[in-house]
Amino acid sequence: MVDVEDKVLTGISSLDKILGGGLNRGDTILVAGQPGAGKTTLGFEFLYSGATKYGENGAYITFVESVNKLKRDALKFGWDFEKLIKEKKIRFLDLIQVIGVKGVEANFSIMMNEIESVGAKRVVIDSLSAMTSYIETKAIARTFIGVLNKFLEKVGCTTFLLVEVPWGRSDIGSGFEEFLADGLIVLESTIDRFKVRRMLFVPKMRGCNHDLSCYDFFISTDGINVSPIPRARR
Amino acid sequence: MVDVEDKVLTGISSLDKILGGGLNRGDTILVAGQPGAGKTTLGFEFLYSGATKYGENGAYITFVESVNKLKRDALKFGWDFEKLIKEKKIRFLDLIQVIGVKGVEANFSIMMNEIESVGAKRVVIDSLSAMTSYIETKAIARTFIGVLNKFLEKVGCTTFLLVEVPWGRSDIGSGFEEFLADGLIVLESTIDRFKVRRMLFVPKMRGCNHDLSCYDFFISTDGINVSPIPRARR
Amino acid sequence: MVDVEDKVLTGISSLDKILGGGLNRGDTILVAGQPGAGKTTLGFEFLYSGATKYGENGAYITFVESVNKLKRDALKFGWDFEKLIKEKKIRFLDLIQVIGVKGVEANFSIMMNEIESVGAKRVVIDSLSAMTSYIETKAIARTFIGVLNKFLEKVGCTTFLLVEVPWGRSDIGSGFEEFLADGLIVLESTIDRFKVRRMLFVPKMRGCNHDLSCYDFFISTDGINVSPIPRARR
Amino acid sequence: MVDVEDKVLTGISSLDKILGGGLNRGDTILVAGQPGAGKTTLGFEFLYSGATKYGENGAYITFVESVNKLKRDALKFGWDFEKLIKEKKIRFLDLIQVIGVKGVEANFSIMMNEIESVGAKRVVIDSLSAMTSYIETKAIARTFIGVLNKFLEKVGCTTFLLVEVPWGRSDIGSGFEEFLADGLIVLESTIDRFKVRRMLFVPKMRGCNHDLSCYDFFISTDGINVSPIPRARR
Amino acid sequence: MVDVEDKVLTGISSLDKILGGGLNRGDTILVAGQPGAGKTTLGFEFLYSGATKYGENGAYITFVESVNKLKRDALKFGWDFEKLIKEKKIRFLDLIQVIGVKGVEANFSIMMNEIESVGAKRVVIDSLSAMTSYIETKAIARTFIGVLNKFLEKVGCTTFLLVEVPWGRSDIGSGFEEFLADGLIVLESTIDRFKVRRMLFVPKMRGCNHDLSCYDFFISTDGINVSPIPRARR
Amino acid sequence: MVDVEDKVLTGISSLDKILGGGLNRGDTILVAGQPGAGKTTLGFEFLYSGATKYGENGAYITFVESVNKLKRDALKFGWDFEKLIKEKKIRFLDLIQVIGVKGVEANFSIMMNEIESVGAKRVVIDSLSAMTSYIETKAIARTFIGVLNKFLEKVGCTTFLLVEVPWGRSDIGSGFEEFLADGLIVLESTIDRFKVRRMLFVPKMRGCNHDLSCYDFFISTDGINVSPIPRARR
Repeated sequence: MVDVEDKVLTGISSLDKILGGGLNRGDTILVAGQPGAGKTTLGFEFLYSGATKYGENGAYITFVESVNKLKRDALKFGWDFEKLIKEKKIRFLDLIQVIGVKGVEANFSIMMNEIESVGAKRVVIDSLSAMTSYIETKAIARTFIGVLNKFLEKVGCTTFLLVEVPWGRSDIGSGFEEFLADGLIVLESTIDRFKVRRMLFVPKMRGCNHDLSCYDFFISTDGINVSPIPRARR
Repeated sequence: MVDVEDKVLTGISSLDKILGGGLNRGDTILVAGQPGAGKTTLGFEFLYSGATKYGENGAYITFVESVNKLKRDALKFGWDFEKLIKEKKIRFLDLIQVIGVKGVEANFSIMMNEIESVGAKRVVIDSLSAMTSYIETKAIARTFIGVLNKFLEKVGCTTFLLVEVPWGRSDIGSGFEEFLADGLIVLESTIDRFKVRRMLFVPKMRGCNHDLSCYDFFISTDGINVSPIPRARR
Repeated sequence: MVDVEDKVLTGISSLDKILGGGLNRGDTILVAGQPGAGKTTLGFEFLYSGATKYGENGAYITFVESVNKLKRDALKFGWDFEKLIKEKKIRFLDLIQVIGVKGVEANFSIMMNEIESVGAKRVVIDSLSAMTSYIETKAIARTFIGVLNKFLEKVGCTTFLLVEVPWGRSDIGSGFEEFLADGLIVLESTIDRFKVRRMLFVPKMRGCNHDLSCYDFFISTDGINVSPIPRARR
Repeated sequence: MVDVEDKVLTGISSLDKILGGGLNRGDTILVAGQPGAGKTTLGFEFLYSGATKYGENGAYITFVESVNKLKRDALKFGWDFEKLIKEKKIRFLDLIQVIGVKGVEANFSIMMNEIESVGAKRVVIDSLSAMTSYIETKAIARTFIGVLNKFLEKVGCTTFLLVEVPWGRSDIGSGFEEFLADGLIVLESTIDRFKVRRMLFVPKMRGCNHDLSCYDFFISTDGINVSPIPRARR
Repeated sequence: MVDVEDKVLTGISSLDKILGGGLNRGDTILVAGQPGAGKTTLGFEFLYSGATKYGENGAYITFVESVNKLKRDALKFGWDFEKLIKEKKIRFLDLIQVIGVKGVEANFSIMMNEIESVGAKRVVIDSLSAMTSYIETKAIARTFIGVLNKFLEKVGCTTFLLVEVPWGRSDIGSGFEEFLADGLIVLESTIDRFKVRRMLFVPKMRGCNHDLSCYDFFISTDGINVSPIPRARR
Repeated sequence: MVDVEDKVLTGISSLDKILGGGLNRGDTILVAGQPGAGKTTLGFEFLYSGATKYGENGAYITFVESVNKLKRDALKFGWDFEKLIKEKKIRFLDLIQVIGVKGVEANFSIMMNEIESVGAKRVVIDSLSAMTSYIETKAIARTFIGVLNKFLEKVGCTTFLLVEVPWGRSDIGSGFEEFLADGLIVLESTIDRFKVRRMLFVPKMRGCNHDLSCYDFFISTDGINVSPIPRARR
């Protein structure tokens, strides 16, 4: 039985409005962006508001940045993950070194255990790009992501898969990841004449009546703020 | 003996008009589009109207999305595939995990059995890109698609092969798939100044007096609606 | 002894005029085009008018589309190839499955036998792209096409080699095929603001006083019609 | 315990202002630029002011230019590294030939020993591109940079990783390095009508309230001077 | 002892003027062009006028087109090579099939024998692209062309190496051939609004006071005619 | 001990002015350019004026053009290298065939011996592209160039490494060579409306107060003349 209106709020009300009322529970969403676009900040806010506002535990799985630095950066926004970790509401899982040694399959088990042990309903994987860079062929990566999606759907986790878009490029990953996910949020960080400009748009969100416009967004000490007025791109 | 006027209606009257009266029975049509372009929705509507309006059974074969999510997403449009499955009018076939384990040849047998067992006259394969990503060389993929086309023609199936066009690109697959199909429907999802814009055009439809114009289309709660007025692209 | 004025008419008078009076007998001509550009239709018209107007038998060799569908599509233009096959004026040769099993060399023998047995003076190979996709290296493909050209010249066959240009691209094949042929006819199918537009031009036709202008062309129920007035491209 | 306001000044006050008050201690910053963009000069100034103004020792690790030439070039700016080397405040480490012979792992040990022996708090690696060019796969390079970052964070080193952007290109490294670093400073050297123009912008600086504008900068006998007024790019 | 003013006239006076009075004896000149650009015609005219106007024997070495077709095409311009062959002034050498069987080294001996046996002072190799496509690596191709150049210089042959530029591209060969030759004549065949337009320019001609302008040229029944007035490109 | 003002004059006063007074002794400078851009001529003038005006012996090492042709071409400018060779002021070293047979390491020894035996203070290597094309991996090439630079610095040679930029492209070599050199002089040969236009700019020259503007230059019977007035590019 599928409940078509079981929505998960991201904690950023302007984004939830664009999404047509939030995310579908159990969906896997790609969050793609160039360096500095705000992917990590969006992941933080998603997890933090889950744990503090909506009573949903979360897990942040990093293949990229050390947990110490992540917590330090989050604290600048006033998001005290250390406290939530102690309250067993959030888990941070550092897989930077493990992956090189034990391989992706081992990580997969560790990830699943962590997600289940904390009873996570929200997961951020930082990043899909880092995780799949250890997988030999596209076919295997494709299978792997398929299996991961099934697991996350089964345990009712709504998941952000962060995707690294190299500076100066706009295509996403290896060209198939966006098709394996239920949705795609693009954070675009480009030079617009005088400065780096951040924009957000949602080209895909299955089963959602989502908004197709482009919006500027800003990162302030409160986190992410999406401008309510659509803006022209390029 | 070939009946030149045995047309298959897609269920979207505005599209059937562009196609010059519908599709030719037994043809294989590529439906290419970026993420969020509406390929799956087009596939749903094709199958759903086949089963409910034209008395034609159908099969949806997925290498990408779980059947549960597919049914959930379809239900938003009011298309109750669960009911049609119980009435043995539609089959959903999930080959996400099978393919990695058993290989493409095994899937091919499973696919053919499913298509024949439900007496499917309409098939959606979601996606050709996923399926061929498991095949080692272009030459083998080419042969494989050739054999598949022959089977589908023989059993009188009209088929949509969904093709994933990565975000930010506009070429299709490996550059040969569009030549192996009888027709090509392009769903284009691009940023047009202020928002993501969806357009549809039909550059190829063998043996059809099809329209060569470009049309905006919209996805509403009724499904796909193609604007009747041609629009300039780019 | 070479007869410099032994011209072969394509059956499309507007095209023959652009070619400077027709093709040279025994020449091999590339016909390159995107999907839906009209390559197959041009091939049909070349063979059909050969058999019905100029008393020249022909062979259509397909690695792509089934013979049944080809005949069905031709019939829409009123070209009854079934009849010509019975009169032993035309042969259709389906090599879709053979090539994967037996390799290109086997196909080559079959092709040569068919061409000689029907006394073909006109040949269409659909497509060079499909045929060479089974050949391992460019060097072998190059040798193979060289040998094929020699055979066709020796038996006095004028040949169209259809070349698949992927949608969204404009370069031809692997970048050497156009140099191995005596001529090159480009059918261009691109989006021109509001619709797909078809244009034709002839950048190369050895030993012909050919026209270098670009022309729109249309596919109607009569076949291909080339506009007599040159048009600007892009 | 993380001190969120432990800032490291680069020694270039205009740059520190753009960075929102300096760098975070222990962070790893990519400095990307085309040849002649000023990467080495920025590295020199960072180390020299560390040793002479802020009481922080430093290490310059080169895989590219000989130490003699580096010292000669620095002397043009009045930065007498020879003196600082004698005072055991700075180390120069030449790994040009070592790497080819002993491999990256050996260099890694040498680097860590040097950094620890001089008690370096500031490190410049010239260049990440050179260092990773000896690593076989992206996956290994990714692991290696991850381990290096952890070491540098642990010993409290703030590090500039110079990245070579080939002339005529604007993307960075292999497309993943910018995600493994805490920040990214882009030095852009392009032809702007009449001359080579140097610009600087900071698209990413984790945990910093950095400025997103683009600035011209100049290299004079004093070192790097960043214009205070944002400038349009391209 | 080097005679700095031993010039070889191409036979096309407008081209000789652009070249600053002709080619240097013993030089190897790349003639690069898209299909239909006129490379073969330029080669014909160079050899024909050598044999009939300047008393220099010549050799045309083909890896591409059959000798019969080449002679037929030349005859359209009134250039009767058959006659010159009988007078032992010209040799045509067909290496299309030989190369695949015996390899490049064997061809090299055959080529040298032919060139010496006819006492050729002018050579056309049609094409360098075809010849090098059989060579495994760029390094070997580079060595091979170096050796060939030395031989041709030693026997005092002035040589045109035809280079195939694929339709839709403008770079030349593998990117090194133009550096191994003494000169480069570019024949450009592009779509210029309404038609295919042919232009010629000479970016490189060592030891010649050559003209750097771009010129339209036309192929008429007299052969190649270069417009005397420079024209803007693109 | 480093002498910061030991400048080497190129012999082209307009260029020395752009370089901020000449080159630094012992530096390695890339001279990059398309075919016909004037790399060889610049190399000639550098060596010839070294031997005749500044009392510095030189060596010209060629992997590309025969020594005979090089001397012939130089003579057109009135530069009689034959005489300088007899006076033991200049060496020409032809490594075209050696490299294929004996490998790069053997060449390296030969090069070093030649440079030392003539007591060369100026070296031209024509070309780095040719030399490195024989080296298997980028990592090895990188090491090799590093070792070469160290040797040249040690013996006090100022060196021009000519780099071949293929026609129609503007990036340099494999993307790392420009970082291994102390300076980069770009000779740009492009089509500027009516003709091939030659421009020169210096994006990088370590330890020099060089000019960043772009200049037209001309090759006349006197050699290279750089226009004193900056010009806009593209």
